[in-house]
Amino acid sequence: MSKSAFAGGNLGVVTPRIFSHDAPFRLRSGAELPRFDLVYETYGTLNADRSNAILICHALSGHHHAAGVHALTDEKPGWWNNCIGPGKAINTDQWFVVSLNNLGGCHGSTGPRTRRPDSDDIYGPDFPIVCVEDWVRSQALLADHLGIERFAAIIGGSLGGMQALQWTIDFPERAGAAVVIASAAKLTAQNIAFNEIARHAITSDPHFHGGRYQAAGHNPDVGLAIARMIGHVTYLSDSGMGQRFGRQLKSGDLKVGDNVEFQVQSYLRYQGQTFSRQFDANTYILMTRALDLYDPASACGDDLVKALLQTSAKFLVISFSSDWRFSVERSQEIAHALVRAGKDVSSAVIESEHGHDSFLLPIPRYLDVFGTYLAQLHGAL
Amino acid sequence: MSKSAFAGGNLGVVTPRIFSHDAPFRLRSGAELPRFDLVYETYGTLNADRSNAILICHALSGHHHAAGVHALTDEKPGWWNNCIGPGKAINTDQWFVVSLNNLGGCHGSTGPRTRRPDSDDIYGPDFPIVCVEDWVRSQALLADHLGIERFAAIIGGSLGGMQALQWTIDFPERAGAAVVIASAAKLTAQNIAFNEIARHAITSDPHFHGGRYQAAGHNPDVGLAIARMIGHVTYLSDSGMGQRFGRQLKSGDLKVGDNVEFQVQSYLRYQGQTFSRQFDANTYILMTRALDLYDPASACGDDLVKALLQTSAKFLVISFSSDWRFSVERSQEIAHALVRAGKDVSSAVIESEHGHDSFLLPIPRYLDVFGTYLAQLHGAL
Repeated sequence: MSKSAFAGGNLGVVTPRIFSHDAPFRLRSGAELPRFDLVYETYGTLNADRSNAILICHALSGHHHAAGVHALTDEKPGWWNNCIGPGKAINTDQWFVVSLNNLGGCHGSTGPRTRRPDSDDIYGPDFPIVCVEDWVRSQALLADHLGIERFAAIIGGSLGGMQALQWTIDFPERAGAAVVIASAAKLTAQNIAFNEIARHAITSDPHFHGGRYQAAGHNPDVGLAIARMIGHVTYLSDSGMGQRFGRQLKSGDLKVGDNVEFQVQSYLRYQGQTFSRQFDANTYILMTRALDLYDPASACGDDLVKALLQTSAKFLVISFSSDWRFSVERSQEIAHALVRAGKDVSSAVIESEHGHDSFLLPIPRYLDVFGTYLAQLHGAL
Repeated sequence: MSKSAFAGGNLGVVTPRIFSHDAPFRLRSGAELPRFDLVYETYGTLNADRSNAILICHALSGHHHAAGVHALTDEKPGWWNNCIGPGKAINTDQWFVVSLNNLGGCHGSTGPRTRRPDSDDIYGPDFPIVCVEDWVRSQALLADHLGIERFAAIIGGSLGGMQALQWTIDFPERAGAAVVIASAAKLTAQNIAFNEIARHAITSDPHFHGGRYQAAGHNPDVGLAIARMIGHVTYLSDSGMGQRFGRQLKSGDLKVGDNVEFQVQSYLRYQGQTFSRQFDANTYILMTRALDLYDPASACGDDLVKALLQTSAKFLVISFSSDWRFSVERSQEIAHALVRAGKDVSSAVIESEHGHDSFLLPIPRYLDVFGTYLAQLHGAL
């Protein structure tokens, strides 16, 4: 793989901060949170006229720690370190980047693991349903807190792309551009089905205890691991897995057949186990439900063009050839609706063997398209 | 959908029979079964020179009851009633059709649920690994029992197609033709991965008890249901599911977001629950392992052409456009290897929205290709 012009450098040590919203926050469902915290990080410097801010929205299992390290001894940097840093596609020499853990998350923001105000109990399964629209409004409150009237760009992949899109609908005057990557304006039945199986694996784990596993002193590790294994396979592509694992054996002999284990089997189990130790089951359910429910056209008679008419952002829509959970067709639906709504939209289909995971990877053409678009945005500030 | 010329009629009541092999049977793994039973059905009449026999090989969750009903009050006929019957693609006015439950199955043939000889215990998880090659040899013993020296055709979809293919390799003189439908000469890493998740869901169900669930008085219903849900979604196509379910709601209101349930969610859960009451978990594991292990080229330096050189059958290879678990490419690998091995091979790619499940459905062009091929075979008897 040849190098991108946006390979760039690293941010070094970054430090998360907390934004506390000490007032009631009504959710789309009608439920109300008495208060909430959002944990966030920023990279780069806000310029004098506060015009160079970018918001990063995370996907299903993401969080605020998108780039840099928390300590120099950290083995891994943030989840989007490929894209964010000095000289990178999201160039922190030019942009002030804000990245948060969403409401309902399990990495420091108020969510199912949080203690309720005036109580010793955590929210657990009673944490209300959170929708993409709720995240957008809570992110707008964080922007207010940071003194950011308008983001130059709001950027996200997958579920993060849905948030970027919704920003342009709900706050047209506060979203200069949206970069919507490997996303969809609504999930298909197949995609909902995979989420349902993942949730079913979690909720039917006997250690789930109706979501009160923490009080019961257990964790639904097995269910979460299965959920992650399903996610993992469906975020990769058949050909990508073929190149990486093929039919390589970890143990046994195919001629005899007994005790055969393929490399891909042990890899998947390892991925599942690692994830189940790190992620909160109630948050996983909450995030997948937000994915399922997202459908901005539903408020406009299922007409996505109509839903996008009030937007005033510029759009970059990126998809990946081998992504079958958020396929090229889903991105094209967004791009075509934007064209029909008369909006300024660029779109790119990136050739990649890496399926949905492509949006996290340093694919040169992807970084080049992405970086060039943002550099042009910056030039026009 | 216009009707196929091979829509045909129904067989009426059919009765399963048992073939008992009361001698030791050594498996590919080296393990030995002291004896075994195979439950089977036959449809149509064996002709005087015993030249009109067809063998049906079943897939992962199939069994011997392929066509007709067991009683006139049965709500559903056999699993391949669309294809087998008077005037149908597999025309029982012309052919004598043999359909069995494979060794290791859970519908009457010797398998994990069977009591061991000279013991009160069932085999359970100690039932040995069974490979496609073992099934083929046990089917040959059934053929001997029925006085069938040579099958005019051996036919199967998916895992059944692997058996049809292996017959032509192991018993070239006994296989006149092979109809290999929606199958593969070996699974890809993605396909193994889905099987692994299904097995993991079963074996990590606390009611699995290391496979001794029957002795423990439990059944790993939850794990089996998840396995089936994964199978179900991956045997359908994205567009097929979209047409059938789309984003239709079963309950709730998308505008509020709370208590929303999509139709596809409840459908999947129902499918999972129904299956887990009917199928044996150890058999499910055994069948998926046979799928993973199948790789006839591995004995010939990974050269499928070489593996097929000794065959003398005619071949019909059928695949379906939207089948992504046993894709068109996998069938084309088989067809191309047969061409390069200088064999008589016809192949057809059928346009269908129904994914892998297409091979079970009455798709007119499929039935026409299939029926015409078999009618020509019959004409040449």
